[in-house]
Amino acid sequence: MEGEGGKGEKGGGAGAARSTLLHNAVIVTVDSESRVFRDGGLFVRGDRIDAIGRSADVLRDFSCRADEIIDLHGRFLIPGFVNTHVHTSQQLGRGIADDVGLMTWLHERIWPYESNMTEEDSYLSTLLCGIELIRSGVTCFAEAGGQHVTGMAKAVELLGIRACLAQSTMDSGEGLPARWKPYSTDDCIQSQMNLYEKHHNTADGRIRVWFGVRQIMNATERLLLETRDIAMELKTGIHMHVAEIPYENQHVMRTTDVDHGTVTYLEKIGFLQSNLLAAHSVWVSDTEIGFLSNAGVKVSHCPAAAMRMLGFAPIQEMVDAGICVSIGTDGAPSNNRMSIVDEMYLASLINKGRGAYIKGLTDPTALPSETILKMATINGAKSVLWDSEIGSLEIGKKADMVIVNPFMWTMVPLHDWISSLVYCMRTENIDSVMCNGRWVMRNRVILNLDEGEVISQATQAASKLLERAGIVIPTRMNPL
Amino acid sequence: MEGEGGKGEKGGGAGAARSTLLHNAVIVTVDSESRVFRDGGLFVRGDRIDAIGRSADVLRDFSCRADEIIDLHGRFLIPGFVNTHVHTSQQLGRGIADDVGLMTWLHERIWPYESNMTEEDSYLSTLLCGIELIRSGVTCFAEAGGQHVTGMAKAVELLGIRACLAQSTMDSGEGLPARWKPYSTDDCIQSQMNLYEKHHNTADGRIRVWFGVRQIMNATERLLLETRDIAMELKTGIHMHVAEIPYENQHVMRTTDVDHGTVTYLEKIGFLQSNLLAAHSVWVSDTEIGFLSNAGVKVSHCPAAAMRMLGFAPIQEMVDAGICVSIGTDGAPSNNRMSIVDEMYLASLINKGRGAYIKGLTDPTALPSETILKMATINGAKSVLWDSEIGSLEIGKKADMVIVNPFMWTMVPLHDWISSLVYCMRTENIDSVMCNGRWVMRNRVILNLDEGEVISQATQAASKLLERAGIVIPTRMNPL
Repeated sequence: MEGEGGKGEKGGGAGAARSTLLHNAVIVTVDSESRVFRDGGLFVRGDRIDAIGRSADVLRDFSCRADEIIDLHGRFLIPGFVNTHVHTSQQLGRGIADDVGLMTWLHERIWPYESNMTEEDSYLSTLLCGIELIRSGVTCFAEAGGQHVTGMAKAVELLGIRACLAQSTMDSGEGLPARWKPYSTDDCIQSQMNLYEKHHNTADGRIRVWFGVRQIMNATERLLLETRDIAMELKTGIHMHVAEIPYENQHVMRTTDVDHGTVTYLEKIGFLQSNLLAAHSVWVSDTEIGFLSNAGVKVSHCPAAAMRMLGFAPIQEMVDAGICVSIGTDGAPSNNRMSIVDEMYLASLINKGRGAYIKGLTDPTALPSETILKMATINGAKSVLWDSEIGSLEIGKKADMVIVNPFMWTMVPLHDWISSLVYCMRTENIDSVMCNGRWVMRNRVILNLDEGEVISQATQAASKLLERAGIVIPTRMNPL
Repeated sequence: MEGEGGKGEKGGGAGAARSTLLHNAVIVTVDSESRVFRDGGLFVRGDRIDAIGRSADVLRDFSCRADEIIDLHGRFLIPGFVNTHVHTSQQLGRGIADDVGLMTWLHERIWPYESNMTEEDSYLSTLLCGIELIRSGVTCFAEAGGQHVTGMAKAVELLGIRACLAQSTMDSGEGLPARWKPYSTDDCIQSQMNLYEKHHNTADGRIRVWFGVRQIMNATERLLLETRDIAMELKTGIHMHVAEIPYENQHVMRTTDVDHGTVTYLEKIGFLQSNLLAAHSVWVSDTEIGFLSNAGVKVSHCPAAAMRMLGFAPIQEMVDAGICVSIGTDGAPSNNRMSIVDEMYLASLINKGRGAYIKGLTDPTALPSETILKMATINGAKSVLWDSEIGSLEIGKKADMVIVNPFMWTMVPLHDWISSLVYCMRTENIDSVMCNGRWVMRNRVILNLDEGEVISQATQAASKLLERAGIVIPTRMNPL
């Protein structure tokens, strides 16, 4: 129960307090009993939650031990959000592929962008994305897979949040940029083993290294099976885009002997396991939902990206089948807002609207706000295999949490606390964010880095990257 | 070209300047040529735009006449948004009807809420909603219809923005609350005539009074036809909810002799005219789209409310048919965010995703960002019959405009100006708002009222209203 100390201490930064007592808060614990303390208090010692309960009780028992006592004046205290699918390396590419078809998106924008990116670009991109993550209350994210994990790790260490990093891995497929072609299956595995060695469990334990598989059309069966075995051996997770578009399923049916698509194929080869985080999973049949459920596969639902590029994922059916569904933002060229706050609102709207798609009428009762809040917190933690330490506010868990000020024009009146958090809250309401017992944002000021400086450097790097990649964005309207 | 003066001067408030020159801005005019000045300047004299062009030219010609010169340092200057469907009286009811079915929504929450509202409640509700409108860059709105137009008008006068107010009018229908039952057709018409007399063209001309028809199931044919004739005579508009749910069309087919639904019936009785603003219009056939187009009816698309309660409106088809489509937020119990900024983002996502609904695949090219920006500005102005004076930045038009700071974590890098405004911009980016030549928000401070005081009074009024109406919101999770 002591402070973490040890290597990577620099990730903490200013604002750290050895012990902090917060009281007079509405504490939404998202614990197994879904307790909400109307006038709650919480005591943080080192990196962990040492006490939680009624303000009066926590004040009585812990005031004498607190370095700092904070009166939240009725504000919300909630678990830090977990964004389970975000391409931090794509932040410099926000706006490079708006309103274009999938093939233009991939071949003329994303591949040239990613294949021309340097490690320094990735570092700056992750910093810029990290600012948006923190400002939307995210204390842990699952990287969807980029090229430069070392650049990402350096950024995460500085940002002070938690991450499951993954390399985007491809050992096959057509139309890839020239510089990506030489990667063999062995290269893919070895490269990830090296990254695991170098970065896993660094930054006070905030960084974990996962294995990445970009998608089925860029993975040989051998890559899939070796990834499965090594991830299992190292007790880490696998992050993969699964069943994104109908073409993907058709490709699988054409090239293998399965009768539906990616999930059926992955089931057949024994790839589906409880350490797999399947992103999107839009085009899955009822049978395949059964496969995912039986194997304990986690699904990252990315509502905005699905609406724009993919289609309606059967989220209600997955939830009904007992699948652990969490929420992701995807990357900036797929969804210009990397805000889990907006994504919760969207998850509600889109899954209510999906009723019209499947049965002719919307279902305003689908995915109620308490379900969505769990998806963004405890289910997120389960999805990144970290729920023993994060995802809810409970004694013994890491102090990853967010102070929300609901007394603003965005949220008042507060007739329904939980739905207000999910449907009304905007990033404006997020006051302060703590990760691993240390403030990373306090009173809307990011603490561990100079935000203006990051924006300036990232903007410059983005321009140079687009020039290097030869990406030209057509102008809109009539600039003079 | 002089300042407006005259009655209602108090609507202006602090921060007013007789003439203001803004320069060094990216000016997105949304004029008929869609001009964007990369380094633009604009001169406001009194309540109107007196000059627009390149910074150097405007500075050279107008500096000597300007009371104030503002360097925007490359920020965006855009037309004020027009929110064409918002229930300002429902703001106190935000969160009273989340995750419930349509019948619960209407009978157990909305009707008790609205029928127990006082004029003072409506005043406070409109002030609270107005803060959100201003903070999302709205300078003009079309009230969807509430009970207390005088309360709304008082609020709009103070807020300093522009509005087309309408009474919610019903002379028939089943299941209405007791206190609404006595209204006869004559009462409905007379009441609106009185409101027109009292409030039309008040507050420096910022307030116009429209005629309201709640919806077809609460309107006799006589009410519809008299409303049409009187609105035409007074040269004002009619605001009506049209074709919201399949049941509505079925009801129309059951009770009249038309073969489709509301729009077909309205066409048959000669109600469709160019001064009709039809809200939602989700369940319309291709033939009915033709009727709307031929009559010059305007459609207010409310993406969030449609997703939650109604279904997918055929917006792309309406746009293709030449219908003027604009954007509305609907009311707070239908969509917890009264932000046209979020609604633009949603309009894109939902209409791209609708491809999956109608043809199996999303269409990422549907409703590109320049189309959506026009919907929220010039089409909004056309929808409220005010485009001769607002909706674009042009010489001679009223100075209704918004300063957007894009150099923040929400919008950088700025690879695509227009798509960034539509997909990335959040309310955080909206710095300042001018309406009718006067600042209503400057550097994120609302000028004409005490925001904290409004929030406090509105919160108290909301609690009392719910108590009076006997509305009980079930708790979620497990409050202790």
